[in-house]
Amino acid sequence: MERTDLGRIVAFTDGVMAVAITLLVLNLEVPDVPGDDLGDALVDLIPSLIAYLLAFALVGRFWVIHHRLFETLRAFDSRLMTLNLTFLTLIALVPFSTNLYDQYTEEPIAVAVLGVTLGLAAFTHWLAVVYTLRHGLVHEQHRSATEPVASPVGLGFTALFLFSVPVAFLSPTAASLMWVATILLHYPLGRLKSRGS
Amino acid sequence: MERTDLGRIVAFTDGVMAVAITLLVLNLEVPDVPGDDLGDALVDLIPSLIAYLLAFALVGRFWVIHHRLFETLRAFDSRLMTLNLTFLTLIALVPFSTNLYDQYTEEPIAVAVLGVTLGLAAFTHWLAVVYTLRHGLVHEQHRSATEPVASPVGLGFTALFLFSVPVAFLSPTAASLMWVATILLHYPLGRLKSRGS
Amino acid sequence: MERTDLGRIVAFTDGVMAVAITLLVLNLEVPDVPGDDLGDALVDLIPSLIAYLLAFALVGRFWVIHHRLFETLRAFDSRLMTLNLTFLTLIALVPFSTNLYDQYTEEPIAVAVLGVTLGLAAFTHWLAVVYTLRHGLVHEQHRSATEPVASPVGLGFTALFLFSVPVAFLSPTAASLMWVATILLHYPLGRLKSRGS
Amino acid sequence: MERTDLGRIVAFTDGVMAVAITLLVLNLEVPDVPGDDLGDALVDLIPSLIAYLLAFALVGRFWVIHHRLFETLRAFDSRLMTLNLTFLTLIALVPFSTNLYDQYTEEPIAVAVLGVTLGLAAFTHWLAVVYTLRHGLVHEQHRSATEPVASPVGLGFTALFLFSVPVAFLSPTAASLMWVATILLHYPLGRLKSRGS
Repeated sequence: MERTDLGRIVAFTDGVMAVAITLLVLNLEVPDVPGDDLGDALVDLIPSLIAYLLAFALVGRFWVIHHRLFETLRAFDSRLMTLNLTFLTLIALVPFSTNLYDQYTEEPIAVAVLGVTLGLAAFTHWLAVVYTLRHGLVHEQHRSATEPVASPVGLGFTALFLFSVPVAFLSPTAASLMWVATILLHYPLGRLKSRGS
Repeated sequence: MERTDLGRIVAFTDGVMAVAITLLVLNLEVPDVPGDDLGDALVDLIPSLIAYLLAFALVGRFWVIHHRLFETLRAFDSRLMTLNLTFLTLIALVPFSTNLYDQYTEEPIAVAVLGVTLGLAAFTHWLAVVYTLRHGLVHEQHRSATEPVASPVGLGFTALFLFSVPVAFLSPTAASLMWVATILLHYPLGRLKSRGS
Repeated sequence: MERTDLGRIVAFTDGVMAVAITLLVLNLEVPDVPGDDLGDALVDLIPSLIAYLLAFALVGRFWVIHHRLFETLRAFDSRLMTLNLTFLTLIALVPFSTNLYDQYTEEPIAVAVLGVTLGLAAFTHWLAVVYTLRHGLVHEQHRSATEPVASPVGLGFTALFLFSVPVAFLSPTAASLMWVATILLHYPLGRLKSRGS
Repeated sequence: MERTDLGRIVAFTDGVMAVAITLLVLNLEVPDVPGDDLGDALVDLIPSLIAYLLAFALVGRFWVIHHRLFETLRAFDSRLMTLNLTFLTLIALVPFSTNLYDQYTEEPIAVAVLGVTLGLAAFTHWLAVVYTLRHGLVHEQHRSATEPVASPVGLGFTALFLFSVPVAFLSPTAASLMWVATILLHYPLGRLKSRGS
C-alpha cells in the first residue's frame, strides 16, 4: 500500500537525527581538576572536541542527503519505512560509536566500530534510494537527478566508510582522514546532482 | 468538544517517541578498560547491542502503528488526548525497562518489567483504536480498514506481550523471542489492513 | 510588530516539552544489586515510578493547556514569545525538581521546590492568557471561551501549586496530593471552556 | 541550486535547539547530602540555577533571531545549509560550555570558552544574514528590514560576546554581565527592525 503523507515520517526522522546529533555533546566531559590545571585539562579535551565536530559534520551530512532524497519522493510504503527505521537505528548509534572512538583513538577496533556504523548507515541510505527508484516512489521530474545516486558510483561513500575499517588496523589516523574526505566530497556530488535536475 | 487540528498532537507524540527511541543508546556504555582488552569488552557488549536493536525495533513498530491510526482520524477529543498521553508515558518508560532488562537478562522479573511496559503500551493503543471508532473520530473511508484492529483479534500483540510475562519466569530467553515475533508479525497484519482499504 | 506564523513557535515549544517530559525517565535508575535482591530493589523503586507518573501527567497537562491557548490565537508578538520562553524555562526545570522531590520525598524544602516550579509555570501560562486577550491576539470566535481562564478564577491552579509550598512544611504527602488534584480538576475546567465555545 | 522547501531545515533546527536548550537542565545536579543539610545544599545550587537561566535565555534569544531570519527567506541553498549546520554545532556546544562555566565560575578560561562559543554562534548567524541578502534568498518585502542586521552594526552582539573573552581574564563577573546585556539589548534592536518592515 502506497501512502503520500510523507510529512510525519520526515518529522520523526528529523526528531531522531536532531536528538542524536545533540547527544554528541555528552561526549565532552567537563574536567574535574583544580582551577590551576583547567587550562591543561582543556587542551587535553581538544581531541574530543575534534571528534565532536567530525561526528556532527557527518551526521549533518547524512541529514542533508536524507533531506535531498525525501524531497524527491511522491509516496512511500512499508518497506521504505523499515529501511528508514534501520537507517535511524544506525544514526542513533553514532553518539555511542563516537564516544568509543574518542576514548580509544589509538585502538583500531574502536575506530573500526565507528567506520562500520557510518558505512552501514550510508549503505542503508543507498538501498533506500535504489528502492524508491525501482518502486516508482520518486516524482517523475526528479528521476534523472536521483538515478546517478542509485548507480554503483553512488556507493562511493559506503565504500569509503567500509574501506576505512581495514585501514584503521594499519593507521587509525588515516581512517579518520578518510571520513573527513567524505565531508569534503559532499560538494562535488551535490553539484553533479543539481546539474541533473 | 471535538477538534480537528491533529497536527500538534502528532508533532508532540513524534517528539516524545523520537527522544525515547534515541535515549535507548544511553544503554550502551563505552567500556573503561586497558586498550588491549577492548576487543573482549566489545564482545561483552553484544547482548547490550542486541537489546538496543530489539527495543529500537519495538518502539519503531509502535511509532508505525500510531502513525497508521492517526492518519485515519478526522478529529480528536480530550479523552483521546489522555489515552495518547498514557501511551506516551509507557513509551517513555521503555529506555528504563530496556536498560533493566539488559543489566539483568537472566532475572525473570527484569524481563517481566519490559514485557509489562510493552503490553500496557499495546493495550493503550488498542483502547485508542476502539475509542476512535466508537466515537466517530475515524474518517468514513478508513472505518472498514480500522475495524479489524479494534476486534479482539487486534489484542493479539497485547496478549503476546502480557503472556511473555509468565513465560519470563520459565525462560527469559523464550520471552525475548516472543517480542521478536511481534516485530515479524507486523507484516502480515499490515497486509491484512491494506486489503481492507 | 504582530506576526501570524505561529507554526514555528509551537514547534519549538512542543520540542522543548517533548524533551523535558521524556527526560523524566532519567529519574528512574536501574538498581545495581545482586540478581536475588532485584525484586526488593524494584519494590523500592515504586515511589520513583509514582513520581515519574505524577510529573509526566503534570507536564502533559501543561502541554494540553498550552495547546488549547495557542489554537485560539490569530497572532503573536515579541512579548508573548518572551512569556512563552519563560514558561519553557520552568517546564525544562521539572525533570530536576522531580528528581529532587523523589530523592528527598520527606524533606519539605524539596517538595516546596517542585511546588514553586509548577506554580510559576502555571502563573506564567495565566499571564500569557491575560496578555493575549488584552492585546487582541485571540481570534474573535475564541474570546468568550478564553475569558473565564483569564479571570482570577483561572488562577486556581497557580494558587493550588503555590499553596502546596507552605503545606509541604506541614505534610509533604498532603502537598503531593494537591498536585494530583490539579490533574483531576483539569476535566471540569475543560468542560467549562467547551460550553463557552 | 536553490530550493524553497524551508520547512524541513527549520524543523531540524528547531529540534536541535529544543534538545540543546532542554539539556541545560542536566547541569543542575540533585545534591547527595543528609536531609538536614538539604537547605544549605540548595542555597549552594543557586549559582548553577543562575547559569541555567542565563544560558536558557541566551539560547532562547538565538532561537528568536534565527526564527526572525528564516521567516524572511524565500529560498535556501547548500551553502546556507552548511552555515546553518555550523550555527547548530555551536548551539549544541552551549550545554557543555555552560556546565564548564558553572563548575569554574572563577576561572577566566572557563568563562572565555562560553564567550567564544556564544561569539562564534553570533558571528555564524550574522554571516548567514549577509549571505542570504547577497544571494537574493530574502523576500523583496523583507530586504529593507534585514539590511541593518547585515551591516557592521549587526556585528554588535558578536563583538560583545568576543570582547567578553579578554574581559573574563580581568573579571569573570564583568564578562557574565556583558552576556546579560545582550539579552536586554535584544529589545531595542527588535524594535529597530520592526520600524523597518
